[in-house]
Amino acid sequence: MKEIIKNIQEKTPIIHCMTNYVTVNDVANVLLAYGASPIMADDIEEVEEITSICNGLYLNIGTLNERMIQSMLVAAKKAEAIHHPIVLDPVGAGASQRRTETARKILDEVAVSVVRGNLSEIKSLVLEDQKTSGVDANQTDRITMDTLDQVIPFAKKFAKEFSTVLAITGEIDLVTNGDTVYAISNGRKEMSKITGTGCQLTAMITAAVAANPEMPLEATFTSVCAMGIAGELAWKNRQPFDGNATYRNHIIDTIYHMTGAQLEREAKYVLR
Amino acid sequence: MKEIIKNIQEKTPIIHCMTNYVTVNDVANVLLAYGASPIMADDIEEVEEITSICNGLYLNIGTLNERMIQSMLVAAKKAEAIHHPIVLDPVGAGASQRRTETARKILDEVAVSVVRGNLSEIKSLVLEDQKTSGVDANQTDRITMDTLDQVIPFAKKFAKEFSTVLAITGEIDLVTNGDTVYAISNGRKEMSKITGTGCQLTAMITAAVAANPEMPLEATFTSVCAMGIAGELAWKNRQPFDGNATYRNHIIDTIYHMTGAQLEREAKYVLR
Amino acid sequence: MKEIIKNIQEKTPIIHCMTNYVTVNDVANVLLAYGASPIMADDIEEVEEITSICNGLYLNIGTLNERMIQSMLVAAKKAEAIHHPIVLDPVGAGASQRRTETARKILDEVAVSVVRGNLSEIKSLVLEDQKTSGVDANQTDRITMDTLDQVIPFAKKFAKEFSTVLAITGEIDLVTNGDTVYAISNGRKEMSKITGTGCQLTAMITAAVAANPEMPLEATFTSVCAMGIAGELAWKNRQPFDGNATYRNHIIDTIYHMTGAQLEREAKYVLR
Repeated sequence: MKEIIKNIQEKTPIIHCMTNYVTVNDVANVLLAYGASPIMADDIEEVEEITSICNGLYLNIGTLNERMIQSMLVAAKKAEAIHHPIVLDPVGAGASQRRTETARKILDEVAVSVVRGNLSEIKSLVLEDQKTSGVDANQTDRITMDTLDQVIPFAKKFAKEFSTVLAITGEIDLVTNGDTVYAISNGRKEMSKITGTGCQLTAMITAAVAANPEMPLEATFTSVCAMGIAGELAWKNRQPFDGNATYRNHIIDTIYHMTGAQLEREAKYVLR
Repeated sequence: MKEIIKNIQEKTPIIHCMTNYVTVNDVANVLLAYGASPIMADDIEEVEEITSICNGLYLNIGTLNERMIQSMLVAAKKAEAIHHPIVLDPVGAGASQRRTETARKILDEVAVSVVRGNLSEIKSLVLEDQKTSGVDANQTDRITMDTLDQVIPFAKKFAKEFSTVLAITGEIDLVTNGDTVYAISNGRKEMSKITGTGCQLTAMITAAVAANPEMPLEATFTSVCAMGIAGELAWKNRQPFDGNATYRNHIIDTIYHMTGAQLEREAKYVLR
Repeated sequence: MKEIIKNIQEKTPIIHCMTNYVTVNDVANVLLAYGASPIMADDIEEVEEITSICNGLYLNIGTLNERMIQSMLVAAKKAEAIHHPIVLDPVGAGASQRRTETARKILDEVAVSVVRGNLSEIKSLVLEDQKTSGVDANQTDRITMDTLDQVIPFAKKFAKEFSTVLAITGEIDLVTNGDTVYAISNGRKEMSKITGTGCQLTAMITAAVAANPEMPLEATFTSVCAMGIAGELAWKNRQPFDGNATYRNHIIDTIYHMTGAQLEREAKYVLR
C-alpha cells in the first residue's frame, strides 16, 4: 500500500475523466487530494489528443448521452492503443438498456483494467434478466459476511472472463483479479447518503493504476481501502450538526492528508 | 408534517431529476438528506425507462438545450401515463423566450403536480409582457406581508387554471392548490446568496409528493417549511468566518438531521 | 480597490457564464460571494437574449463541445455589439487543438476585455509549438520573481496585440494592459490542489469589469488580489483536519466577507 501511494504522489498521474455532471466536481477534488491531476474532456474532436497527454482514462456512465458514448469509445480505443489503463464505472447499469449496453460495449471493445460498481450493476453486465432500481444496489444484492461466499465465485469468473480487476463495493467490498480475492470491511453505511462516493472511488482507482501500471490489483485494493478508511476517520472527527454535505467534504479532506502508513494501519481485510 | 416526513423516510422515493448542471450536485445531496434517492438521466433513449423505475419526475429548466427539452417532454409524458407526480421548476422563465416557452409547453402538455418558482418566473408563465432579470425575482415582484393580498388571487387563479399546487417563494412563501393558501415566513434572506436553494427545494417537493401522492398540498407546504427552517437553524449554528459556501453545506446538513417534530415546532405560517 | 469592490456590491452585475460543468457551481457561488449575480445559459436559441439582460459575459472553455463553441461565438458577438465586457478563460489551451483554436477564434472574432490563464495556456494562444500538459501550467512555465523579467515583455506584447487586459496567474500573478504591469504575490501554493480556483477568479474578474467598465485593468488587478488574499486568510483560519474540499469552501466564504479596506491592507504587489 505504501508503494502504491508513494507512486501516485511522486508521479502525479494526469487522469482523463469522462464522467457524469452530477459528481464531477467531487471527482476532480478527490483526484487532487489523492495526489493526481484531473482533466475533463468529452468532445469527440479532442478526446484522443487529451487522452494522449494523460496517464489513465476514467469512464463513468452516470449521465450518458449519444455524443458522450461515441466520444468514450473513441477515447477508449486511443487509450488502449497507447497502453493507458482504462477504468470503468457502470453507474446505473441495469437501470436502463442504454446504460447496460454502453457498459457492455466498452467491455467488449477495449481492454478495461478495472471495473468498479455495486453488485446489481456488475450483475447486469453479464446476466440477461438483471434489473437495477436506480443507482443503488438492490436489497437482494447486498454483500455481507453471510453472502460473501456466494458472491466470490461470480466475481472471480467475471474478472477472468474480461481479464480485468473487478471491485464490487457494498457493506463488504470485494476486489479480485480472478485469482486473489480481497474482502474489505472498511467504510461506513452513512457514506451511501452522499452522492458520488462510488464515482470518487473509481476515479481514485484510475489514478492508482495509472501510477502503478504493473500492479492493478494492489492499486485497486489500496484505493478501496483508502476510501473506506477516509469514511471512517471523517466520521470520527464529525461535529454534532454535521450531515451528508459536510461529511462529503471531510472525506475528501481526509484523503488529502492520508499516508501510506495510515492506510496500512487502518485497513481491515481478509484474503480469500 | 410528521406524516409527510415519515413517508419520505420510510418509502425512500427514487426521484428522476432532469435538472441544470449548475446545482445538480446539491440537488442530489439534499434529496439524500431528505430521505429520498436521486437518479439523473437526460438522454432521450433512456428517460422513459428511468422514469418508470422512479417514483417522481423533477423538471428544472435552469440550463436548457434542444436535446434536454425533447427528453423532458418524453419523460413527462411517460410519467403522466404511469401516474407519477411531475414537479416543475421554471428557472429563469421570463429571462428568455426559450425558457418561457418550454415551461409553458410542459404545463400545457402534461399534468404537473407542483410548480415552484419566484414571482417573476411564475408571472412569466401566464402574463404576456412579463420579463425576468436573470434567475432572481424582479424588485417589483417581492412578496412581503404588505404585497401578500395582491399576490394571493393571482396564485389561486394559476393553481386552478393548471390544476396544480403552486409554490411561490420569496420573503414570504405562498403555497396554494387554488383553495387553501399557506403563507410561510420561515427562511433567511442570506439564502439568496447561495446558488440553488430554489432548485434544491423543488427537488425536495418532488420527493415529498412522490412519497405522499394523495397529499400534494401538504407535501409541498412541508417541504417549503423544511427548507426555510433549515436556513434558520444553519444560520443559528454558524461560525464567525462562515460565508455562503459553508452555509450551503450546513443547510443540507440540517435537512439531514431534520425531524417531523422539529418541523412542526419551528414552522411559521398563516392559513389564508 | 475600494471603489472597484463598492461598485460590484452596489451594482450587483449579472454575469452570463458559459463555463465548464466541472467547477460551475463554485463559479456561481463565488460570484454571489463577490456581490454579483450569475446566470448560466449555453443554448444557441437563448444566449443572445440572456446576454442582453446581463452586464458581462464570461467564456470558459474547460469542457468544450461543438454546440457550446457555436453558442459562445453567438453570445460573444451579441455582447460585443451591445458593449458588454467579454472575459475569456482559455482552460487547457495547448492541451488540444480544439481548445487552442477555439480560444484563438474568440480572440480573433470579438474584442475581449480580459484574458486570464496560466502561462502555458496564454503562450499556446500565440506560439505555434506550445503544448500544455493538462490544465496546469508546465513546469517550465512557472512565474517566479526570477523569471518575472522574461515574462513581462511577452505579457505586454500580448495585451497590446489583442487590446486586452491580460492576467497570467502562477506563483507570481501578472496583470497588464500592455503599459502598466502589476506583479502580485498574494495566494498560496495549496490553492492549486483545489479544482477551479482559476475558473472562479476569471468569473470574479468578469463581475469586477462589468461593474467598472471604465477600469478593466484595476478591476482585474483587484480581483486577482482578492482571490490570492482569500486563499491566504482561509489558510490562516484552517483547522487541523481541513483539506482541499474544506479549503475550497473557506476561500469562497472569505470572499463573501471581504471588504475593500481589507483588500488594500493585504494586497502584496509591485508595479513594473
